[in-house]
Amino acid sequence: MKLQLALFSSLFLNAYFYFCLFLHHHQPPPSLGWTGSAAAEAEAVAAIDCSGHGRAFLDGVLAAGGLPVCECNKCYHGSDCSRLLHDCPADVDSGDPLFLEAYWQQQAASSAVVVSGWHRMTYSTNGKDYISIELEKHIRILHQAVGNAVTDGKFIVFGSGSAQLINALVYALSPSNASSSPASVVASVPYYPFYKKQTNLFETREYGWGGTTATWANASVSSATNVIEFVTSPNNPDGLFKQPVLGTSAVIFDYAYYWPHYSPILDPADEDVMLFTNSKISGHAGSRFGWAVIKDEGVYERTAKYLSLNTMGVSRDTHLRVLKLIKVMIAEKGGEGDIFEFGYRTLKARWSKLHELVSSSSRFSLQQHSAQHCNYFRAIRDPSPGNAPSRANEEEDHTYAWLKCEWKEDEDCHEALRKGSIISRAGALFEADSRYTRLSLIKTQDDFDLLLKRMQPLVSQEATASS
Amino acid sequence: MKLQLALFSSLFLNAYFYFCLFLHHHQPPPSLGWTGSAAAEAEAVAAIDCSGHGRAFLDGVLAAGGLPVCECNKCYHGSDCSRLLHDCPADVDSGDPLFLEAYWQQQAASSAVVVSGWHRMTYSTNGKDYISIELEKHIRILHQAVGNAVTDGKFIVFGSGSAQLINALVYALSPSNASSSPASVVASVPYYPFYKKQTNLFETREYGWGGTTATWANASVSSATNVIEFVTSPNNPDGLFKQPVLGTSAVIFDYAYYWPHYSPILDPADEDVMLFTNSKISGHAGSRFGWAVIKDEGVYERTAKYLSLNTMGVSRDTHLRVLKLIKVMIAEKGGEGDIFEFGYRTLKARWSKLHELVSSSSRFSLQQHSAQHCNYFRAIRDPSPGNAPSRANEEEDHTYAWLKCEWKEDEDCHEALRKGSIISRAGALFEADSRYTRLSLIKTQDDFDLLLKRMQPLVSQEATASS
Repeated sequence: MKLQLALFSSLFLNAYFYFCLFLHHHQPPPSLGWTGSAAAEAEAVAAIDCSGHGRAFLDGVLAAGGLPVCECNKCYHGSDCSRLLHDCPADVDSGDPLFLEAYWQQQAASSAVVVSGWHRMTYSTNGKDYISIELEKHIRILHQAVGNAVTDGKFIVFGSGSAQLINALVYALSPSNASSSPASVVASVPYYPFYKKQTNLFETREYGWGGTTATWANASVSSATNVIEFVTSPNNPDGLFKQPVLGTSAVIFDYAYYWPHYSPILDPADEDVMLFTNSKISGHAGSRFGWAVIKDEGVYERTAKYLSLNTMGVSRDTHLRVLKLIKVMIAEKGGEGDIFEFGYRTLKARWSKLHELVSSSSRFSLQQHSAQHCNYFRAIRDPSPGNAPSRANEEEDHTYAWLKCEWKEDEDCHEALRKGSIISRAGALFEADSRYTRLSLIKTQDDFDLLLKRMQPLVSQEATASS
Repeated sequence: MKLQLALFSSLFLNAYFYFCLFLHHHQPPPSLGWTGSAAAEAEAVAAIDCSGHGRAFLDGVLAAGGLPVCECNKCYHGSDCSRLLHDCPADVDSGDPLFLEAYWQQQAASSAVVVSGWHRMTYSTNGKDYISIELEKHIRILHQAVGNAVTDGKFIVFGSGSAQLINALVYALSPSNASSSPASVVASVPYYPFYKKQTNLFETREYGWGGTTATWANASVSSATNVIEFVTSPNNPDGLFKQPVLGTSAVIFDYAYYWPHYSPILDPADEDVMLFTNSKISGHAGSRFGWAVIKDEGVYERTAKYLSLNTMGVSRDTHLRVLKLIKVMIAEKGGEGDIFEFGYRTLKARWSKLHELVSSSSRFSLQQHSAQHCNYFRAIRDPSPGNAPSRANEEEDHTYAWLKCEWKEDEDCHEALRKGSIISRAGALFEADSRYTRLSLIKTQDDFDLLLKRMQPLVSQEATASS
């Protein structure tokens, strides 16, 4: 009887082990192949504790223990980034979209990608003009899903960030005929300073920087005059929707911020030349990836030729990664992991806090926008047209605070903030009044928290002149 | 007794299962964390059978089954690339370095890299001017290990392939003073056509294409004349070591092929401006990564400024991957997995076969080089100076065959090959005699095998005029 019980137990255990070994795999079997060591390495680096004020990267400088060091957020230091530097200025200068880093940490499993050693070594791609077919296809799907741009019947080119495309498009829209006068590249104040800086550096016999639209509006711009107008909408820095003002044929619409985390989505844009950057969509500024949507075949071909002779297209490693990111954004649309919802909530909360603080004093003012219905959030939240629109349908632009110093003595607003240990981007850089300065709200939470901390004493001060 | 035997067997099986389940893991435990699904996906794609004549990529177009399709080598087709197209021409036009694909497939485990969703999202890098500190450090280590360039005390900039750096360096070496005459960019025949094509497209008031050095050699080039001379050494297409011929101060040394798989390594190069491309080192042309080694700080700063305003540096995804590739190349140096040894053996074997075939007829001839000692292979194979040098120390350049058509009627060698279903790169593109054409030996094995097959009947023909 004992023997039988033992045998029975043993057989039961046999069955259990057999089940564990061969049947109990709902998920695919764990990878033990060639990806194993890369996966283990990545997980080890991701597990490094940087106190929530930094992160370690696979290609970071190595610490004594052989693992990469923590790279800390501004003003934090120490091996685990736990120490806040005393008297460190709040840096809200750049438009570095790090507010989305937390989103991708939440999407760790779905957004990771393994690059094999032999991934796309060739110069060529499966699509023409150094374009990956799947990536182009998913970019069109993304625009369709968000409803911010019409891409049907238009060409798409990829650039190493929209930075590269700015000049490529200027080249493509300039007269190819040597006898024509060179094109003048213009923008309306306040405008993104990079347009001017880049055009000045790469100026050729075919084009050059032509100044602001205000200087052209009074002159008669005939159709024979070659003018290329940049229109950023919503605008950087002030968030306003913009339209071309000169009525010339060559317009580059820069829609970097026409995404639901930053802006209400009205009608889908349907312009001849439209510029987008993944830096401001997924937040991967370091990947250097942007695209242009182009209607005219000749303009497309000239742009593609420029990109071919400049860099022979964008890194195929980046193609692979951006495809994965865009797939996640599409798959999570309308659900718990919607990146636009995440981004909107984050920026809205930041804006509200800043707005409250600034409103408590007469020293500063912020730009005001009328709230507008956002087709994107209405579509995903409120499919039934009979429902009363929820508050979230009413959106404003929260990317940058375009701060105005109201006190007489604060003529240079950037400088007034600097004295209060806040690094902003001076209005003068946008060719605007120096009473204005730009505060970036899209950096890390630490950057934003420090901004509020440094703003507090500034709004509490009394005006020396007006008191 | 039967019961005892059954119990014994059952217990034995339990012990075996237990061993399998819990003890039989010499390797680290399988990763089941956030990298798991990306790893499984990558392994599934890598396992797709493309008959050795193609490969599937993670971002490939999807087949009906949901997995990416095989992307076949030229002339192969079918869902598993197993079918050779009849009458397909041998395409040996481009310098696509696919001969190294097999190397990285062998190094699958060590060369894979996992990119997390939150990897380096920021515009900035840990080093200045959009440079990753670890990558720059490993580039210096690689040059030291190979012995092909002196980098001590010099600056390094990264570009999206050497393509981007060509124009960046031309810009940096041109007079910044508007009153100076523009710089003329020149090269000696036969030269890499991209120099001219790119310079013509991006020509500014500061520089333009100046033609070949031959047209300048007779004129008196005074020190006041701004000339920027490209020197490619070993040269593309003919593999010869080259020196500047005009004696002007601004020279860009393009060392794309000064690596042991292509060329004997003599002394380490120690020039003021040196250009390298990872496309021809690891073979990852699609990653778009190159670098320049620059002595003068002013030239470095102007180059960095150009790169900053052109693309804001190179994709940080590419930084990460190239670091991994370079680490493998350094770690495997001198061992079984030495990439330079692999590359040298592969190209040497191809060259020998082509040489043998071409030598069997009077129709064609190939460039001849005197074999030279290679410091790299001597160092790794023959550390004792007393030993007789092995054959492998004697190296020639095997990158491209610079083929000459010797028959009177074959005035256009490119065309003569085209009639025989071989696509080569015409000598005229290098501004050389049309009796010359370039055959690339660095593409896939399929491309090379087809080249031999198509050459065979050509060398067997008899000359109509001379017979």
